[in-house]
Amino acid sequence: MSRRAVVLLSGGLDSAVAAYIAKQDVGPRGELYALSILYGQRHEKELGCARDIGEVLEVENHIFQEIGLENLVCSSLTGDEPIPVEGVINEIPSTWVPQRNSIFLALAFAYAETVGADFIYTGFNIIDYSGYPDCRPEFVERIETGLNYASKRFVTTGKGFSIITPLMQLGKAEIVRTGLELEVPFALTWSCYQGEEYACGLCDSCRIRLEAFKLNGIDDPILYR
Amino acid sequence: MSRRAVVLLSGGLDSAVAAYIAKQDVGPRGELYALSILYGQRHEKELGCARDIGEVLEVENHIFQEIGLENLVCSSLTGDEPIPVEGVINEIPSTWVPQRNSIFLALAFAYAETVGADFIYTGFNIIDYSGYPDCRPEFVERIETGLNYASKRFVTTGKGFSIITPLMQLGKAEIVRTGLELEVPFALTWSCYQGEEYACGLCDSCRIRLEAFKLNGIDDPILYR
Repeated sequence: MSRRAVVLLSGGLDSAVAAYIAKQDVGPRGELYALSILYGQRHEKELGCARDIGEVLEVENHIFQEIGLENLVCSSLTGDEPIPVEGVINEIPSTWVPQRNSIFLALAFAYAETVGADFIYTGFNIIDYSGYPDCRPEFVERIETGLNYASKRFVTTGKGFSIITPLMQLGKAEIVRTGLELEVPFALTWSCYQGEEYACGLCDSCRIRLEAFKLNGIDDPILYR
Repeated sequence: MSRRAVVLLSGGLDSAVAAYIAKQDVGPRGELYALSILYGQRHEKELGCARDIGEVLEVENHIFQEIGLENLVCSSLTGDEPIPVEGVINEIPSTWVPQRNSIFLALAFAYAETVGADFIYTGFNIIDYSGYPDCRPEFVERIETGLNYASKRFVTTGKGFSIITPLMQLGKAEIVRTGLELEVPFALTWSCYQGEEYACGLCDSCRIRLEAFKLNGIDDPILYR
């Protein structure tokens, strides 16, 4: 049977690199499925990027799942509060959306069970994670167990699903270097939280991204204002 | 501080009883928040019931969260395949929606974190659970751990959220008896998978419900065709 994987593809830099790694891992005869989620984020622009990357990677199927979280949670990423631009701080910032990755992973496990995939690839990483609790390996390990216990396949055959986090221990500069090796089209990725025509260059996400390209001695191909 | 809880309220019989238990547990000065989810189910009718029950219970806030799972999963509950009417079988039936309860619980944890609730009440039970893997205590225990590891409050204060499953070990007849004691308005609940004007009386959900009322020696107040 061919190797099958689902990738959580946001259209950001990390998930694009994770998707390219997944594509390589499943191999030319494998099948890659993409899942992108609209959760009321300001930067829906990145979902256009996700679509482009899915097309370049020739995924078997690409699902765009809509879940409006704006009524359920209070985050500057989905609400009206301004996005912080003062630089990376040493606590969980207002851009954090409670349980976002849990919700995404539960949806990805449902998709994986439906298409018969064994692996769920994500771009989670702890190094430049802005203090988000749901990007840590301690979380990934436990939610994988929890979600497998809700799986029909795991319960009936003992064969569970694995969350693959190839970028977990990499800094952003290493992620960019990995992407360069895999020829990830970085021009098709989007990281800025603001979601305007040009990237702001000031939010945490832009700052970390720009620094990573600089450390690799190359220019970021996207446009900044 | 007042006791706060979130209840996952589907409008079915079990979640209505769980909501009444939650209301009793938080007490007259406590706060109960309701979360109802539209996931593309055929029986959206039950969400009208959920609204009515939320009103009777005077919940602080009632969120109706829409997540169309029909593209993501393959289940007779969200798709075109007929609902089984041959009676309860000894395997996971086609009405099972992969990861449904994981998705619901992740959303409920997000809501609980937002409103500062400590408890998430659900109507899960293993006795008449139609073989669904995501209704078992083994699942609930593990997903609670996983979701807490994604929680800002748990990570920063060590204070996690608890999933309360007061009906877990009760048979349907005992659930009905509990509901009678709490004066749950059963006429406002809906169990039939078909979601038509009258309950079908033939799907697993109707069969189990009817039997439970019969065992309590009373008539089910909803209309059957």
